[in-house]
Amino acid sequence: MGLIVQKYGGSSVGDVERIRHVARRVAERYQSGSQVVVVVSAMRGVTDNLLGLAGALNASPDERELDMLLATGEQTTIALTAMALHDLGVPAISMTGAQAGIITNGIHTKAKIHSITPQSIQSELEKGSVVIVAGFQGQSLHGQHITTLGRGGSDLTAIALAAALKADLCQIFTDVDGVFTTDPRVCDRARKIEEISYDEMLELAGAGAKVMQARSVEFAKKYGVVFEVRSSLNNNPGTIVKEESESMEGVVVRGVTADKKQAKVTLVGVPDRPGRAARIFRALGEAAVNVDMIVQNVSHGASEPMTDISFTVDDTDLVKASHVFDASQESIGFRGVETEENIAKIAIVGVGMRSHAGIAAKLFQTLADLEVNIKMISTSEIRVAVVVDRERADDSVDALHRAFIA
Amino acid sequence: MGLIVQKYGGSSVGDVERIRHVARRVAERYQSGSQVVVVVSAMRGVTDNLLGLAGALNASPDERELDMLLATGEQTTIALTAMALHDLGVPAISMTGAQAGIITNGIHTKAKIHSITPQSIQSELEKGSVVIVAGFQGQSLHGQHITTLGRGGSDLTAIALAAALKADLCQIFTDVDGVFTTDPRVCDRARKIEEISYDEMLELAGAGAKVMQARSVEFAKKYGVVFEVRSSLNNNPGTIVKEESESMEGVVVRGVTADKKQAKVTLVGVPDRPGRAARIFRALGEAAVNVDMIVQNVSHGASEPMTDISFTVDDTDLVKASHVFDASQESIGFRGVETEENIAKIAIVGVGMRSHAGIAAKLFQTLADLEVNIKMISTSEIRVAVVVDRERADDSVDALHRAFIA
Repeated sequence: MGLIVQKYGGSSVGDVERIRHVARRVAERYQSGSQVVVVVSAMRGVTDNLLGLAGALNASPDERELDMLLATGEQTTIALTAMALHDLGVPAISMTGAQAGIITNGIHTKAKIHSITPQSIQSELEKGSVVIVAGFQGQSLHGQHITTLGRGGSDLTAIALAAALKADLCQIFTDVDGVFTTDPRVCDRARKIEEISYDEMLELAGAGAKVMQARSVEFAKKYGVVFEVRSSLNNNPGTIVKEESESMEGVVVRGVTADKKQAKVTLVGVPDRPGRAARIFRALGEAAVNVDMIVQNVSHGASEPMTDISFTVDDTDLVKASHVFDASQESIGFRGVETEENIAKIAIVGVGMRSHAGIAAKLFQTLADLEVNIKMISTSEIRVAVVVDRERADDSVDALHRAFIA
Repeated sequence: MGLIVQKYGGSSVGDVERIRHVARRVAERYQSGSQVVVVVSAMRGVTDNLLGLAGALNASPDERELDMLLATGEQTTIALTAMALHDLGVPAISMTGAQAGIITNGIHTKAKIHSITPQSIQSELEKGSVVIVAGFQGQSLHGQHITTLGRGGSDLTAIALAAALKADLCQIFTDVDGVFTTDPRVCDRARKIEEISYDEMLELAGAGAKVMQARSVEFAKKYGVVFEVRSSLNNNPGTIVKEESESMEGVVVRGVTADKKQAKVTLVGVPDRPGRAARIFRALGEAAVNVDMIVQNVSHGASEPMTDISFTVDDTDLVKASHVFDASQESIGFRGVETEENIAKIAIVGVGMRSHAGIAAKLFQTLADLEVNIKMISTSEIRVAVVVDRERADDSVDALHRAFIA
């Protein structure tokens, strides 16, 4: 019963057989008496194929036209999903992002949702139809442009629709069983988390657990949308993501994560004067280099105080970052740049840390027992993150999981 | 100079290389100072591929969802064509049928254009952009539904846009050099027609010359849109289709056509009473059987006057037609049905016939000289059509071309 929003990603609708499977799952829910809104992505491979065509015609395709092109992927899936539901005798109607009333801020390839006018969806739900909405897309305010929402856009569509429709439940179907305490491929004691808070989920996403993009979780937090991450391959319950509750604090560490795609950059001999750090990170921001952990050492030097600033970036951004430094060394005035690629960022996350002392110390001791050297440390209220050699990442995760979780 | 609408069909945009070729042609026109609106179809093969996916999920897919699905084909082409133009340094913007302001009557898979609001196109043209519009599609009045225009829909889009924009020229690019006096594969004397009237073009279309669907020509005639049918493979001038002019009457026969996909049906012993024919053809119409030539013989029979009614249908519709007769024989009250599949319809077309006597006689004599038996005859003001054995069709066309044209 009630109104449910279900989202199925590209692998869940990867071919005709998988679409039929999704339709059967939706039909079951519909036949149990629920109103169902389904959000689907492009079939796996379709987007890459379209990008290949675009790339063959233009080395740097216009973003408006890329959006026009890529939006066909989801439009194809919604129509096929509707047909599959009809074949099961379930009334269903497909809607593009525009038809579903999803208005964006008009920024191509990475639009933000500005507002949703869900009357068309509501009207079809009231007629007894399943409504199938194209994920990842919307239109600009006056409809002149199709805009896509960028990475994780279909999750965002589902969560935003759940908010706008005041849905009773929002389910994000994916190819894993839910959110795990750590990567099961690395640690055989990893287990599925039943409930997790938005903040923990955000820290996990930021720490390299790629179940969902942070923006969708932030949106859900902002609008209080409770959602479930679960598998489209079985009927196991997934992980519920929701506002923090008292019972959650009983668990000190919710999860352990590793991000092996980071690189460490150290600017050596930065004059320790107000505004220098701001200039460095503004320059990186303008070059679209995503900076994560930042550590500034204490000032040293006699005549002029100087400091070293270390930070991590996505390793694919390292070349871009180097260009920024080459261009700005003189104006910012640092002595040199050191980079290190073979690192990993390990983090433990949990809201229970707030009320438990000694967590960081236990983490350091655990790694010390393994003889893993810690290169950077960064903490938040519910997270402790460290940078270690990449080749020791898996050992570290396994040991931390044993130490803190199981 | 001036405003030009160009339409490129599915084979003209069949792959990336062909799209690049179209872009170069458009760019030339743009750089010569024209405002250019380009209408494109789906890339060849794309529509069939989508229909294959639909058919795998549902034996008779919902028409609204088919439209949703198929509309992605043209949307893909417009984005790619815009990118190809950008690559040549030409400003260009793509528009779906909906964005271009094409409103239809909302009938799925075979919508009629209700109106066009061309302000968005005009605004982009004034900014100096080439505007690329998805052919074959529009939306329902309030935008809830994407609708496609059915066969020949992209030609119709181009001609309707030319009318709405008061274009100076409309060019329909295809894979043939224009409209020919007859099929060059059948008669080596066939030659391209420089100018043809709407009415002649309509008779040619109805008589089996498949260059364009009749509906697009009718639309052009209604709104006085002069258009050119020409090849996208070379720079040869094509055939201009326009209102009849005095000079056209100098040519008695504009073209000779053969349609080898017809079958002949004769209802034997139909009671010769008012309303019987209407009932027969209404039943066929309801079954979506397309009836072409109709011939009714004189009444015979003593106690009750009876007649035979013969007509032609597409041979693929013959089974459907048989079902109609099985179901209605008793209520309509005819004695029997005879069908003949191996026939062809041959026609000569020309506005000059109006002012020339003896054309039909010359046609009959030409076929008599070939010992071709005539099975049905039907005439209009500018056309004489006959049904003959299919195996004699090519001979007949060749002989008539020699007798009337060259």
